Amino acid sequence: MHKVIFDTDPGIDDAMALLFLERHPDIELLGITSVFGNASADTTTRNAQFLKREFGIKAPVARGADVTFDPGRPMASWPTFVHGVNGLGDIDVPETIEDVPLDPRPAFQFIIDTVREHPGEVEIVAVGRMTNLAMALARDPEIAGLVKQVVVMGGAFDTNGNVTPAAEANIHGDPEAADVVFTAPWKVVIIGLDVTLQTVMTRTMMKDLALRGGPAVELLARISDPYIDFYSQQVEEGMVVHDSCACAYVVAPELFGLRSGSVRVVCGGVADGLTLQKPAGRAFGPSPWDDKTEQKVAMTIEAEKVVDLIAATLAP
Amino acid sequence: MHKVIFDTDPGIDDAMALLFLERHPDIELLGITSVFGNASADTTTRNAQFLKREFGIKAPVARGADVTFDPGRPMASWPTFVHGVNGLGDIDVPETIEDVPLDPRPAFQFIIDTVREHPGEVEIVAVGRMTNLAMALARDPEIAGLVKQVVVMGGAFDTNGNVTPAAEANIHGDPEAADVVFTAPWKVVIIGLDVTLQTVMTRTMMKDLALRGGPAVELLARISDPYIDFYSQQVEEGMVVHDSCACAYVVAPELFGLRSGSVRVVCGGVADGLTLQKPAGRAFGPSPWDDKTEQKVAMTIEAEKVVDLIAATLAP
Repeated sequence: MHKVIFDTDPGIDDAMALLFLERHPDIELLGITSVFGNASADTTTRNAQFLKREFGIKAPVARGADVTFDPGRPMASWPTFVHGVNGLGDIDVPETIEDVPLDPRPAFQFIIDTVREHPGEVEIVAVGRMTNLAMALARDPEIAGLVKQVVVMGGAFDTNGNVTPAAEANIHGDPEAADVVFTAPWKVVIIGLDVTLQTVMTRTMMKDLALRGGPAVELLARISDPYIDFYSQQVEEGMVVHDSCACAYVVAPELFGLRSGSVRVVCGGVADGLTLQKPAGRAFGPSPWDDKTEQKVAMTIEAEKVVDLIAATLAP
Repeated sequence: MHKVIFDTDPGIDDAMALLFLERHPDIELLGITSVFGNASADTTTRNAQFLKREFGIKAPVARGADVTFDPGRPMASWPTFVHGVNGLGDIDVPETIEDVPLDPRPAFQFIIDTVREHPGEVEIVAVGRMTNLAMALARDPEIAGLVKQVVVMGGAFDTNGNVTPAAEANIHGDPEAADVVFTAPWKVVIIGLDVTLQTVMTRTMMKDLALRGGPAVELLARISDPYIDFYSQQVEEGMVVHDSCACAYVVAPELFGLRSGSVRVVCGGVADGLTLQKPAGRAFGPSPWDDKTEQKVAMTIEAEKVVDLIAATLAP
């Protein structure tokens, strides 16, 4: 069993990824940690509580960061044109979910405690900004040696970003945190736009899944509808399932081709939030990539098989 | 006839590119402007004088910049492990070339005057740091509207750099100058590592050319020998002919596949000198790429045909 902490900012594709983690038979979801990103931390935390209730999830929700790791960064506006004002495609969500209490700890403390309870076993799947993870490392650097792996949805390596030509949204939202996470002495696998943009779930597939997957998938289909409209600029009648790709990696790493090498994040300047890897084994002059942990970046994906795996897991 | 100013820091592949420009029947070389880079400006200027004499070139040599456009940048060391201490593979070169007088003007003024003498006709082929061009634009911004095109060897777009994982040498050597040149309102075509690394002239080809191309090509073969040794890390028994690719583009643009879009250069930080294009027609959030001139970046090359063109031009 994969013991997973899901760090997330739901978020529409986050909701799908959460249901994937809950429904996959080889995954034990230990907790959900919220973070600001697709909406404010108030909203993403409330959404995590809402989805926990609607999906019948037992794992606790711990509230995470509402500002960047470097609090001096100016706040950007929320991507309401992608995820809606409420982060879930503007379907009807109650203002508060009173019957789903939060874990009393902040997300970073929940992460530290849970990792220490299961040394060497916990896999953190992080599909929002890296703020909670960076805070956990700052508070307790030893957890780096106790985590099995960190699987991140984020970044754009040999391709353009999506927020700016340089940067992908999760990394652009907190570049300093991402640089801390990627250079820490733990195993990070980064599933970025180089591969996620190839994974499209069509509106037709989604509707078909809703017929077979019960109320939880019906809910997914409802919140995904405006997201599919948004993606119509890029793909035909479908949604890119970014966050679910990171979850699929946990159980089916053989569907991804990884490149090894240290990774740095540009902090500030025109390319703020750009992710760049120094491929292992290639010679360069001295650079800020030297002597950093070699991480893995996904460069290829068997996209159809990943989408099939997601579909089969959501509606078995 | 293509009226060309060659801005260069000879430099081994610079020497080959210079002979290409001199020997191609459709090119009229108007002048050679030196710039620091592969060696100091003293050395690259002396090398330009030496090559002018050895190649029997009529066009004048004007001495260019010896420090970066932003003089506050710390000086880096010269890449003697690539081009030798003397910039020409450490063959015997006289300390001064007294029989080849320099043009009295600095390079930037030579560029301004020459462009104004031939409005709309001059093509600048720039294969070193962009310092002279940025200085010319700063002194006389109107030349942007009078130049036919600027063809640059430099940058690394959807691939790693060569000095650092982020940056290619010509751009890394003066990022501020490159950003000025790429964002100015003139037509720039950038031939970077995405394509030049595919163009390899083997040691055998070089020796064969030397037999047919006379003393000038014999000289090229001699200075190229240690360069081929250097490249043995990356390619088998051959040299990458970066700078000649930019010259080949002038006469055979059909051998290159270009991508349109504005280009910015990262100045400072871990990715100092990184070049990044915003592909035209793709939607992003607001970014520093907006409202800048759309330039062309080479993404594909018919490498074998380019190498054949270079060989046929050097030794007709």
